[in-house]
Amino acid sequence: MQIFVSGLSYRRDPGAADRQYDIPSLAADEIMNWMEELRALVGATGVVDQAQDMAPYLTDWRGRFTGRAAAVVQPATTLQTSQVVQLCASRGVPVVVQGGNTGLVGGATPDATGQALVLCTRRLNRVRRIDTANDTMTVEAGCLLQHVQEAALAQHRLFPLSLASQGSCTIGGNLATNAGGTQVLRYGNARELTLGLEVVLASGAVWDGLRGLRKDNSGYDLKQLFIGSEGTLGVITAATVKLFALPRTRLVCLLALPDLTMAIGLLQRARDAAGPALTAFELMSGLCVRLVGRTLGQQRPPFALEFPWLVLLEWSDHEDEASASRQCESLCAAAIEAGEALDAVISRSLSDCAALWQLRESIPEAQARTGGNVKHDISLPLGSMDRFVTETEQALHALCPELQVLVFGHLGDGNLHFNVGTREGSPVSMAFQREEQINDIVYAGVGRYGGSISAEHGLGQLRRTLAQRVKQPLELEMMRGIKRALDPQGLLNPGKVI
Amino acid sequence: MQIFVSGLSYRRDPGAADRQYDIPSLAADEIMNWMEELRALVGATGVVDQAQDMAPYLTDWRGRFTGRAAAVVQPATTLQTSQVVQLCASRGVPVVVQGGNTGLVGGATPDATGQALVLCTRRLNRVRRIDTANDTMTVEAGCLLQHVQEAALAQHRLFPLSLASQGSCTIGGNLATNAGGTQVLRYGNARELTLGLEVVLASGAVWDGLRGLRKDNSGYDLKQLFIGSEGTLGVITAATVKLFALPRTRLVCLLALPDLTMAIGLLQRARDAAGPALTAFELMSGLCVRLVGRTLGQQRPPFALEFPWLVLLEWSDHEDEASASRQCESLCAAAIEAGEALDAVISRSLSDCAALWQLRESIPEAQARTGGNVKHDISLPLGSMDRFVTETEQALHALCPELQVLVFGHLGDGNLHFNVGTREGSPVSMAFQREEQINDIVYAGVGRYGGSISAEHGLGQLRRTLAQRVKQPLELEMMRGIKRALDPQGLLNPGKVI
Repeated sequence: MQIFVSGLSYRRDPGAADRQYDIPSLAADEIMNWMEELRALVGATGVVDQAQDMAPYLTDWRGRFTGRAAAVVQPATTLQTSQVVQLCASRGVPVVVQGGNTGLVGGATPDATGQALVLCTRRLNRVRRIDTANDTMTVEAGCLLQHVQEAALAQHRLFPLSLASQGSCTIGGNLATNAGGTQVLRYGNARELTLGLEVVLASGAVWDGLRGLRKDNSGYDLKQLFIGSEGTLGVITAATVKLFALPRTRLVCLLALPDLTMAIGLLQRARDAAGPALTAFELMSGLCVRLVGRTLGQQRPPFALEFPWLVLLEWSDHEDEASASRQCESLCAAAIEAGEALDAVISRSLSDCAALWQLRESIPEAQARTGGNVKHDISLPLGSMDRFVTETEQALHALCPELQVLVFGHLGDGNLHFNVGTREGSPVSMAFQREEQINDIVYAGVGRYGGSISAEHGLGQLRRTLAQRVKQPLELEMMRGIKRALDPQGLLNPGKVI
Repeated sequence: MQIFVSGLSYRRDPGAADRQYDIPSLAADEIMNWMEELRALVGATGVVDQAQDMAPYLTDWRGRFTGRAAAVVQPATTLQTSQVVQLCASRGVPVVVQGGNTGLVGGATPDATGQALVLCTRRLNRVRRIDTANDTMTVEAGCLLQHVQEAALAQHRLFPLSLASQGSCTIGGNLATNAGGTQVLRYGNARELTLGLEVVLASGAVWDGLRGLRKDNSGYDLKQLFIGSEGTLGVITAATVKLFALPRTRLVCLLALPDLTMAIGLLQRARDAAGPALTAFELMSGLCVRLVGRTLGQQRPPFALEFPWLVLLEWSDHEDEASASRQCESLCAAAIEAGEALDAVISRSLSDCAALWQLRESIPEAQARTGGNVKHDISLPLGSMDRFVTETEQALHALCPELQVLVFGHLGDGNLHFNVGTREGSPVSMAFQREEQINDIVYAGVGRYGGSISAEHGLGQLRRTLAQRVKQPLELEMMRGIKRALDPQGLLNPGKVI
């Protein structure tokens, strides 16, 4: 058997990003031996190599990407993971790491060659340790995010990472993609929540970087390389993450706004009034909210009139509820007085909070029910948000008057989900047919204002070619240098990110 | 002239860390040309090459390291910095970046060969932009930290990085060393405050990564490599940093504690009660505080009795002062009731706050007045703090009964300044003569409990060999791989960190 020759994926010519990898095929008897070797390492139940059993691992959650694989392997320990990766390294077999398979950019779906092994982390699912004195928790990569949250809660601690898919995504996937979610404004992205990592490197060697230290300047901060690199630099097998004090009170306000500029003013006001008590500041266009009402039934904002924009603001306080309510009311009153908000409601109970969040969280499902749309997950400096939205909408309408923009997102983090569909009554195919031109318009605006083409979803396969086009050549070159240094054979998640 | 051959500094044999670099000497006329080239790039005033003028740049702040240099160059723009580094790359000249020269580990002091250029960033001192809507600020590397704080304050915003040397250290140095300081508990290290960087790479190429985005998952997060790498991977020329809302109130409590275990209990209680309002939790041993009183005069804690440990707790609130006072009082009362604290005072004015902080911040000066001591800047998981201190003190007394440990530091971050001197009346030389054995004892304990040999000061020259000894070989190998990828000639700050 030939060994995969390193470096092929790093040619600098423009077409390199789109070429398949030059990986030699295995003869049938070699495949048999190879599967036996894997079974010897992880046990028979840990290897899935029948087509029908592999299928769920070979298509991404949104159904946009389908690949093939030699097998799906589920190691149960770090040692097994190390042995599997070592075997792959010696045979030149690419490794595609997969957690809950909930990614939105095809980052965990293998390519079409069928040469890769899908390394599923779901059996690495132990909570290794909760250290309440240190306010840290060490968990294995395959733990479900919700499981991690619940384990923290059982010790009266908060693990703040929170996303729509938390019931099925894994913490390993969250770290590999530097997940964002709804609490970034206060607690940061997955990166900021991580103190230490255990990583199986491309060679199969295990790096034990599971430190529970809030300060460590004893050399390069290597964990940063693996967080957000989408499985292209190493296989995260465990992490030590930060825990926090549970807030005593949580209030949610929903505010109706006359325009988007006012949302930025309101954010500044809320930041000043609440400081770290401001734990979420979510934007929804009136269109999004009306779509939720139309497609999902009773979900409607509790306002008499319809407004162009709504903001959901979450206030988490360590004092009592009365104090938080008082401060929230005073913030809303000041915002209305200043003309930043037209109307406001404040939750009076936990079920109120849940209902208001539900409105926000139903938006993706409502969009899916109408046939979907052309999605963008962008970030922008806050001061340019308003101009970006106005100019981009105008350009899109000039392209096709039937296009309709559905904007929502984590405004407090500068992150918009800027989705382009069509007006009610027009087929969504009118948008999908123009996908390329729509993307050109949106990403030109993002570039003009110094934004990012991927705020929280990552690049995966979906935005890899785009990244090659819009990122500075010097930056791509540095990324390739890092990739070569850590994965000289180019076997970790080939065809993704870089 | 020969070009420096790359890779020499990365031999894996154990002695490699201690060998000098094999850099060819320049003949006298070559030196002349080379100085002329530099003057042509940065102007005559930007090049210092006379021995007496260079002296202040060639010895570190603590006076532990003195080196030699070909010249000290002070570029005034990023372009000039790029041109200087490019010239050095073409001539194989090492580059040692220096900001305010306030580092504590000799990281900005050149070696003894006299071949290196000291690149001083102090003329790169513009505040390029303050964006209040986006809550960000773009500053050049040579800005003094205090200048950055003041520029933020002038816009009613907070830049929270705060250290004793803020009047003379530069923000570039803070980022290159991932500085910590007194507000890490709430706001994080310099790393967590940074959104974007502009970096001159080893080749002289300028990487413009000055993004003001709180979310950006469009590829590897390259800025993380440069933060904390102490000038060994690139020259930071500017940064975009986060700003925060100014707290409305700031209170300081001083609590007297019966033992160190109680300090951990008190920290947990304070975290739960205050949440993000807890902005500092500093530990001081009674010995440290008595030393301040003895050597600096009137500085004494406002307690009738002397206690073995004191904690300084800072509470920063976005509500009014009355509310913060009420909460602080209730926290102190509960701590006393639980036996965690024996006595407590709470500031009633800003001058009270300043006086209490002054007590904490005078400790290093008081130690210097008594002839200094053997210093360690370590971090540990909080639950092991007490055992570490007890066991290490015992081992040190077994080594020499005259040794005395002076412990203080940022307990909330798990960071202790664990300094070993001698009892009053015994000469400090008794400690310095045993420096190596003392270090062995301290770092053995740090290793036993999974701590770090450098929490906030970095490795520089002082702790480089130690790092080679205590860090995992795999981790050192990864660091060398990163270094090779970004600085293939090994010209950036040779002999430091790795």
